[in-house]
Amino acid sequence: MDLFYVLLILLVATRAFGELAERLGQPSLVGELIAGIALGALVAQYPGSFPDLVDIAHNDVFVTITDLGMFFLMLYAGVEMQPHKIVQYSGGSLVVAVGGMAVPLGLGLALGWIFLPESELRTAQCLFIGTALAITAVPATVRILMDLGQLDTPVGQTIVSAAVFDDVFSLMLLAWLTGLIAVGEPPGLVDIGILLGKILLFFAITACIGLYIFPWGGRFMHHLRAQELEISAMLVAAFAFAVLAEMLGLHFIVGAFVAGLYFGHRTIDKASYERVKRTISGMTFGFLAPIFFASIGLNLNLDALSGAPLFVVVLILAAFFGKVAGAGGAARIYGFSARESAAIGIGMSPRGAVELVIAGVALKAGLFSAAVSDAPEVRNLFSAVVIMAVVTTVVSPIILKRAFSIRGDGGKPR
Amino acid sequence: MDLFYVLLILLVATRAFGELAERLGQPSLVGELIAGIALGALVAQYPGSFPDLVDIAHNDVFVTITDLGMFFLMLYAGVEMQPHKIVQYSGGSLVVAVGGMAVPLGLGLALGWIFLPESELRTAQCLFIGTALAITAVPATVRILMDLGQLDTPVGQTIVSAAVFDDVFSLMLLAWLTGLIAVGEPPGLVDIGILLGKILLFFAITACIGLYIFPWGGRFMHHLRAQELEISAMLVAAFAFAVLAEMLGLHFIVGAFVAGLYFGHRTIDKASYERVKRTISGMTFGFLAPIFFASIGLNLNLDALSGAPLFVVVLILAAFFGKVAGAGGAARIYGFSARESAAIGIGMSPRGAVELVIAGVALKAGLFSAAVSDAPEVRNLFSAVVIMAVVTTVVSPIILKRAFSIRGDGGKPR
Repeated sequence: MDLFYVLLILLVATRAFGELAERLGQPSLVGELIAGIALGALVAQYPGSFPDLVDIAHNDVFVTITDLGMFFLMLYAGVEMQPHKIVQYSGGSLVVAVGGMAVPLGLGLALGWIFLPESELRTAQCLFIGTALAITAVPATVRILMDLGQLDTPVGQTIVSAAVFDDVFSLMLLAWLTGLIAVGEPPGLVDIGILLGKILLFFAITACIGLYIFPWGGRFMHHLRAQELEISAMLVAAFAFAVLAEMLGLHFIVGAFVAGLYFGHRTIDKASYERVKRTISGMTFGFLAPIFFASIGLNLNLDALSGAPLFVVVLILAAFFGKVAGAGGAARIYGFSARESAAIGIGMSPRGAVELVIAGVALKAGLFSAAVSDAPEVRNLFSAVVIMAVVTTVVSPIILKRAFSIRGDGGKPR
Repeated sequence: MDLFYVLLILLVATRAFGELAERLGQPSLVGELIAGIALGALVAQYPGSFPDLVDIAHNDVFVTITDLGMFFLMLYAGVEMQPHKIVQYSGGSLVVAVGGMAVPLGLGLALGWIFLPESELRTAQCLFIGTALAITAVPATVRILMDLGQLDTPVGQTIVSAAVFDDVFSLMLLAWLTGLIAVGEPPGLVDIGILLGKILLFFAITACIGLYIFPWGGRFMHHLRAQELEISAMLVAAFAFAVLAEMLGLHFIVGAFVAGLYFGHRTIDKASYERVKRTISGMTFGFLAPIFFASIGLNLNLDALSGAPLFVVVLILAAFFGKVAGAGGAARIYGFSARESAAIGIGMSPRGAVELVIAGVALKAGLFSAAVSDAPEVRNLFSAVVIMAVVTTVVSPIILKRAFSIRGDGGKPR
C-alpha cells in the first residue's frame, strides 16, 4: 500500500463529498461515509485500476490510521465536554442508557430466535444480534452532534453519556459472548462479577488520576522547558488510559474519551487548553476523522442484500425502532419533551464505528462460520450487521438534523 | 504490536530524555535520539519484558507512524521557511551543496577502495559509502536548527536549502547505484538524462502548482463551508506532492517540504496560515517527531563496533570531516565568516533519517550479502553506516550549539 496515495485519494474524496453534503443541507459526516461507500463500490468494480485500494479495509497500516482517527475523535469529544455537566445529566443519561440497551437487546434476541435455524451456536448468535443492536457508535454520534452544533446542549450531553454507558455495557456483553463461544457455556456469576469489577476499577483508577494527578501534572509542566509539551502530556494521558481500558476489557476509545474529559480548566490554564483543543480539532476533523468515516463506508459488503434481504430490512428497522422506543421512551419517562426524546432515540441509533469492532471480534471467534449452519441468515449475518451499521450511521444524522430544526434551535452556524 | 502501549512508552521516554537534554544545555533532539538508543538496548537485553517493542523498527505499522513523523517534520519546515529567502540564499546554498556533496563522495570512494576487498560489487559498495557520506538528513537538520532557534537565519536557510539539494543529488546517485547493482553495469548517459529530467519535471510541476494553483485554491476555499478545511487543503497538497516525488524517483520528504514552501501568505490569509502552522507544529513536535527520532535510535545495531571497529571510527571521522571541509569550505569561499562556515559544515553533518532509507534500499538490493564477500567490513557495512548516521545526528547539535553561542547570537530562548 502506498500510504500517501491512499491518504490523498481518501482525503480528497471525503472532503469533496462532505462539502457536497453540507450544500445539500446534510452534515458532512454523511458525505464522508458516502465517499467511502462510493470508493468501495468503484474499487470493487475496477480492482485493476486501484490496486492500492483493494481490500484496504483489512490492511494493518490502514486500520492503524483509522484507529488513530477513532482515538482522536473520542479524545476531542472528551476535551470538548464538561465533566460537571456529565455529572449533572448523569441521572437522565443512565435511564436513557438502560432503556436504550434493554429494548434493542430484547429485539435482537427475538429476531435471532425468529430468523436463525437451530444450531449449537444459536444462543450465541442471538446474543450477538442483541449486542449489535444495543451498542451506539459514540465516535459517530459525537461527530453528528458536532456537525449539528448540539454537542454541548442537554440533549447532546445526555446522548453522548448514555452512548458511552451503552458501549461499556455492550463490551461487557461481548466479553461474556466470546466466553460463551470459546467455552461452549455461558460464564458464571463469578466471571460476570470479575468483568464488572474490572470496569469499576477502570473508572476508579482514571477518576483518581484525572482528579488528583492531572492538576498536579498541569502545575508541574510550568517548570519544564520542552516544546509543545501540553499536547504530549494530553496524548500520554490518553494513551495510558487507552492501554488501561484495553487491559481491563474495555475498548480503547473509552480510555481516550475519559482522558479528554478530565483535561480541562482544573488541569491547565485556559490559553493552553484552547491551544491543545485547536490542535486536536485540526488533526481530527481536517485529517483523521474523514479517513476514519470513509473506512466505515469501505467496509460495506452488500452480500446480505441478495442472500437474506428480508432479514437485513428487519434488522435495520429494529435498529432504529429499538433505540427510539428504548432510549427515546426512557428519555420521555425521565421528563424530556417528546421532540427531545425522539432526538435522543435517533441520536443513539448510529452503530458505525464500534459495531465493526464487535462484528470483527465475533467473526474471528467463528460465530458465522459455514460449519455452524448453511442458512443464508447465518452466512450473511456479518454482512447484514455491517449494512445495518452503515445505514444507521448515514440515516441518523439526516433525521436528527430535521428533529433539531423542528425544535427551533437548529444547528449553530459555523 | 499494541499501538497505544508502544506510543505511550516512546512518547514518555522521548519527552523525558528531551527535557533532560535541555536541562544539560543540549537540544531536545539529542535526548530523543538517546531515548531511542536506550530503549533499544533495554529491549535487546530483556526481550521477554517488552514483547511489543522487540524488532519494532521493522514493524510495518510502526514504520508508517515514523514515516508520518518525517512527513510532518518536512512539511513544517517548508511552511516555516520563506520561499523568497530560499531564492535569496540559493547562490550560497548551491555552492555549499556542491562542496558538501563532492568532498564526502570522494572520501567515501577512497574509504571503500582502502577498506573493502576486491569483488564484483566493490564499485557499487564504494559508491554506496560515497552516497551515504554525501547525504544530509534534512528532517534532523531542520529539528536541530529549530531547537537552536536558527531555522530562519541566513546560516539556517543556507543549511536547509543546501541539505535539500544534497538529498536530491544523493537520491539520484542512489537510483543510479541500484541500477548498477541490478544490471551489473552503470546506467548510460541516456538513463542519467532521464533521471535528471524527472527531477527537473518534479520541480517544474510543483512550481506551477505552487505559484498558480495554490493562491487560486486559497481564494476558492473561502466559498466552502466544511470545517478545518485549511488543514485538509495543506495535507492534500503535501500528499499529492509526496506521491509525485515518489513517482519521479525522489523521496516523499522532498514533496512534503516543497508543498509547505509554497503554502504561505500568497496562498491564504495570515490568521489561517498561523492556525495551520500551529496545528502542524503541535502534532509534529508534541507527537510524531519525538517518535520518529526515537526510531532512529532504535535502529542502532552495534555489530560493526566489534566486527570492524577501525572502519566505523574512520567512517564517522570522514562523515564530519567531509561536510566540514566540503560544505564549510565552500561556504567560506562563497563569503561566509569562518565561524558561520564551521556552523554550516557541522549543520550539514547529521545523516539520521535519510541515511536509514538509503541503507535500507541498498540492503534490499543485496549489496551487503554474505555471498558477495566474507570480509568483516562488508558484512558489517550496513551496521557501520547506521552507527555513523546515529552518531553524526547526536553529536552535530551538541557541537552546533557551541558554534552558534560562540558567534554570540546563540539559540533564542523559547
